[in-house]
Amino acid sequence: MSLDHHRLAPMANAIRALSMDAVQAANSGHPGMPMGMADVATVLFSRFLKFDPAAPRWPDRDRFILSAGHGSMLLYSLLYLTGYEAPTIDDIRNFRQLGSPCAGHPENFELAGAECTTGPLGQGLAMAVGFALAERHLNAVWGDDLVDHNTWVIAGDGCLMEGINHEAIGLAGHLKLGRMNVLWDDNRITIDGATSLSTSEDIPARYIAAGWHVARCDGHDFADIERALAEAAADPRPSLVACHTIIGKGAPHKQGTHNVHGSPLGAEEIVAARAQLHWDAPAFEIPAPILADWRALGARGAAARDKWEARATSEKGRTFQREFGGELPSLASFDAYLAEISQSQPKLATRKSSENALQSLTASIPALIGGSADLTGSNLTKTAATAPLCAGDYAGRYVYYGIREFGMAAAMNGIALHGGLIPYGGTFLVFSDYCRNAIRLSALQRAQVVYVMTHDSLGVGEDGPTHQPIEHVMSLRMIPGLGVYRPADAVETAECWALALARRDGPSLLALTRQNLPALRNDASENLSARGGYRLICATAARQVVLLATGSEVSLAVDTAKALEAEGIGADVISMPGWREFDMQDDAYRAGLLPAGVLKVSVEAGVTLGWQKYVGTDGLTIGIDSFGASGPAEQLFPHFGFAADQIVSKIKTRLEV
Amino acid sequence: MSLDHHRLAPMANAIRALSMDAVQAANSGHPGMPMGMADVATVLFSRFLKFDPAAPRWPDRDRFILSAGHGSMLLYSLLYLTGYEAPTIDDIRNFRQLGSPCAGHPENFELAGAECTTGPLGQGLAMAVGFALAERHLNAVWGDDLVDHNTWVIAGDGCLMEGINHEAIGLAGHLKLGRMNVLWDDNRITIDGATSLSTSEDIPARYIAAGWHVARCDGHDFADIERALAEAAADPRPSLVACHTIIGKGAPHKQGTHNVHGSPLGAEEIVAARAQLHWDAPAFEIPAPILADWRALGARGAAARDKWEARATSEKGRTFQREFGGELPSLASFDAYLAEISQSQPKLATRKSSENALQSLTASIPALIGGSADLTGSNLTKTAATAPLCAGDYAGRYVYYGIREFGMAAAMNGIALHGGLIPYGGTFLVFSDYCRNAIRLSALQRAQVVYVMTHDSLGVGEDGPTHQPIEHVMSLRMIPGLGVYRPADAVETAECWALALARRDGPSLLALTRQNLPALRNDASENLSARGGYRLICATAARQVVLLATGSEVSLAVDTAKALEAEGIGADVISMPGWREFDMQDDAYRAGLLPAGVLKVSVEAGVTLGWQKYVGTDGLTIGIDSFGASGPAEQLFPHFGFAADQIVSKIKTRLEV
Repeated sequence: MSLDHHRLAPMANAIRALSMDAVQAANSGHPGMPMGMADVATVLFSRFLKFDPAAPRWPDRDRFILSAGHGSMLLYSLLYLTGYEAPTIDDIRNFRQLGSPCAGHPENFELAGAECTTGPLGQGLAMAVGFALAERHLNAVWGDDLVDHNTWVIAGDGCLMEGINHEAIGLAGHLKLGRMNVLWDDNRITIDGATSLSTSEDIPARYIAAGWHVARCDGHDFADIERALAEAAADPRPSLVACHTIIGKGAPHKQGTHNVHGSPLGAEEIVAARAQLHWDAPAFEIPAPILADWRALGARGAAARDKWEARATSEKGRTFQREFGGELPSLASFDAYLAEISQSQPKLATRKSSENALQSLTASIPALIGGSADLTGSNLTKTAATAPLCAGDYAGRYVYYGIREFGMAAAMNGIALHGGLIPYGGTFLVFSDYCRNAIRLSALQRAQVVYVMTHDSLGVGEDGPTHQPIEHVMSLRMIPGLGVYRPADAVETAECWALALARRDGPSLLALTRQNLPALRNDASENLSARGGYRLICATAARQVVLLATGSEVSLAVDTAKALEAEGIGADVISMPGWREFDMQDDAYRAGLLPAGVLKVSVEAGVTLGWQKYVGTDGLTIGIDSFGASGPAEQLFPHFGFAADQIVSKIKTRLEV
Repeated sequence: MSLDHHRLAPMANAIRALSMDAVQAANSGHPGMPMGMADVATVLFSRFLKFDPAAPRWPDRDRFILSAGHGSMLLYSLLYLTGYEAPTIDDIRNFRQLGSPCAGHPENFELAGAECTTGPLGQGLAMAVGFALAERHLNAVWGDDLVDHNTWVIAGDGCLMEGINHEAIGLAGHLKLGRMNVLWDDNRITIDGATSLSTSEDIPARYIAAGWHVARCDGHDFADIERALAEAAADPRPSLVACHTIIGKGAPHKQGTHNVHGSPLGAEEIVAARAQLHWDAPAFEIPAPILADWRALGARGAAARDKWEARATSEKGRTFQREFGGELPSLASFDAYLAEISQSQPKLATRKSSENALQSLTASIPALIGGSADLTGSNLTKTAATAPLCAGDYAGRYVYYGIREFGMAAAMNGIALHGGLIPYGGTFLVFSDYCRNAIRLSALQRAQVVYVMTHDSLGVGEDGPTHQPIEHVMSLRMIPGLGVYRPADAVETAECWALALARRDGPSLLALTRQNLPALRNDASENLSARGGYRLICATAARQVVLLATGSEVSLAVDTAKALEAEGIGADVISMPGWREFDMQDDAYRAGLLPAGVLKVSVEAGVTLGWQKYVGTDGLTIGIDSFGASGPAEQLFPHFGFAADQIVSKIKTRLEV
């Protein structure tokens, strides 16, 4: 079925009507983008996009990503019009109301038809790079029969002006992700006014410099849009299509100005828009013939899916579907590795222990796809099983992300949300700052991404305060739903990796040392890290102190406890690699580790703010509340008070012994 | 004096020798960049840079910014060789040792000759945009006699690949900051290997697309370098000079490879390098004639400075020097404003109260230079006194930074560090994530930058969880040295602005509401916010509860206290706009507000982790430890437990009354 262009105009106006009416009803939202891009989106959905409203998460669908997430009514309109189960028209009536899946910005956890959660500018397009990368990789592994789809993006000027756009298109251009096409809502308007207020950039030239193909069209001429999109689809490079549009098109007095970007049109302008659009239907009603055209268009998607389902009944197809569904293979070799290190007790940096764990895991789990933001040899993220993924060989499983922390994190979100793969990637922990909002979006989107963040404290040493995390571990613990792990030795590191892989519905972040650490565990029969915190050492003398520590400071706490015991002061040592898991334990378990009436002392080479949750206002917090310094790590730790004798002295002063 | 090119070669080799020897002695550091860029830096310092080692912070000096901060030995070598008081040769011998000003990365607080602290990639170049912008603005205000200098940058591939580079060069190109010249160490090597592993970009084309001029040179041919730098200096656009270099040039077996980037060369290779460079002197010794050439070059700078000092004795010159030195004018009108609002008690959003305060402050203080990352009408950062700063009119004091949060924050760091100006800039608080590492660098560099972060909680409402800060206020409090303020009404907002302006040696961040808040203070005779926390309401009935709150939750705490009092339960309300200041008060003051034996309850629409520091493990924390939701703010607050009756109920349960 191919609709004539003259039938597309009223279909596009249906998007405009729903968008302006929903924003008006909510008295909040962004009508400008959906009205401006309605024509382009109608051509995309009617002529190009492979989708089936009856199966929103069918593996071989095209991915459509609304990077300009504030224009959410564009997506909600399209999903409703083409016949997705959600949103319903009532959901749209309740746009931006508590409980409606039609949230202010699209949320993948609310709507099956939303591939990802967008709104933080630039990240939708950057996630699309991950979607497109995942498609090429899975295609290389499983073949055209099972994986053969495109990634389409709608982005605005804001997405293109953000720094992450440079990282994203650099990566996509380098990897020649030609299945990715970005439809740029080129309306020359931002919130503050004309784009000329703040930019003079030749955007197409920049994309060409990054190895992209660029097409242009009149975003309100259906034939021209179709030509440009066809050109984009055909070109082997990733494509940017500059769609020259009028923001708020259809609102006669406000279109083309920034006043239509983020506010309701108002009742009067809506009346005028209805007249201009020849749209007589009441709010939230779509005339039957127009809705029928949209629904017919949506129903057309079943054919492609049916053919795919038939192909996917092959043995390979069934295996693919199992892996795409998230089934992990046996990890017997990993269990053997864990048992082995609990006996051999290697003295290693936890980054090295992470590498050792990954050697085993990547060999067993083909879904693991790794990388680093140009710190491969420091993060130790590359393994024997992961060959480089490059433009010439998408079957590889290791991505040289380049010096692009934010782009890497967003791409990993896209890879995870595409399905079928579990991405992990590394950088220095201090540069979690560079990608912090993407880490937050991993958590919000419930995406299984594993962040391998090494050089996690003063232990960085000579590189100095710019490279030494201080506030990072604690501030990452505050991101809702993010699993933050700071393991103390090789066994805990392997345990935390196991936790990260077991958690299918959320991200994990491993904070790992640069420096070697002694082995502390000689029994790996139970994953003690799964408790979040556990008693590593039990006091011998009468218990007066409980030491709580994480990562590299656990061995320091052990030394401190020994010194205290030598003076007759009983001290427990609690290792707390994962606060999130610890808080999920029952009261009895937690109270058992943190008994009342005993001095509690936290030891962590980071800010103390936060530890009062466990040690109380009458506890001691051994930490660092200033920036670090440049010098050898073994000098820095005592310089900042991290030596057993210093801690013992503070404890004795507090105990008045 | 102009040195022949043949005399430059040994001078450049002095940089190479010092760099490889210092890294070797430290057994840590980055020899590759200093050795690769030694020739370019020698031409820059000998032919172009306006500097006077005797007066490192002379206002009209050229600014030299080593964006590739890991190559710190290049800067340390240059400062020592040209005759700065610091570093001494002993400081260089102690490169990367605790206590040496020659830290792993250059630190402006350690060395007067370091304009800023670099190392986090991309930010040096982005700060340079701020330096160049400050220069053009001050030039427009004070004229060529007093302000007429250039900003020179050395940057590596990493600086150019980071996302912030896109934002920085977009801003510089748009504002036509032609006094800014970037010398790109184009060596085609990153840590992971050849740049071709991760990028295929045509970098010059991208810079041209952003409105830059691009020149090229052989980075080891003095005449060619001089030609290209002259071209850059003459061109009215900002310039990128692609300096084709060999990383680690001079180390015969390792140069040109990533092995020379970040590790000592080793004793054997250093012997070979000495032979290749014809460098016979022992480590840390510079042959007298070569040192004499360098020192003569350094001494030459006094002439330009002497002339400037003579011009700066004019009345205008003296005024300029006072303002450049940081002297602020009388704020009588601001005091009057504060007194007025304490009487009129306006019910306003704190973002609006911030605008009102800024209207007064910007009218009084010409050093204030504002802006927003494309949210001017939301952050309310533009005032009547601040006309737009644009390429055609640098005298303006309002920068439309565009959708470039990270670039804005870094540029503000540069503006502040240039001297003579106090930058402030706005975005949504949730997008502090996008510029978090630059906020950290404001604090590390002790730069007076004021962040105006609006839409600070669930009060964002319909935009939903992507736009609602949850963990942000608390996690920003963890950045050492950052003043985080969350004022509760118009008076507190003005007080916090006064604190931000009074703090000349560090950054402040204001977390402000979107929604209106009632007035709480009717006396502004003392800046109570300066205490960080203070008793706003004293219990009438016997005190059983102390409520601690910030920002929009202070009025909720007041309502809660009233409801408790109505039931005979005495409750104090403590407003805590600034934790940093509160922690600086003496024990007696803090204990007076937080007496033992009374239930302490925190109320803040953000994560609870951290509040235990004040309420203890037996206190109550009213907060939100999940993501938010899309809906009207007035529904969201009670939905997440922020209603007086809900809090009263929890308190009564805890008190068992």
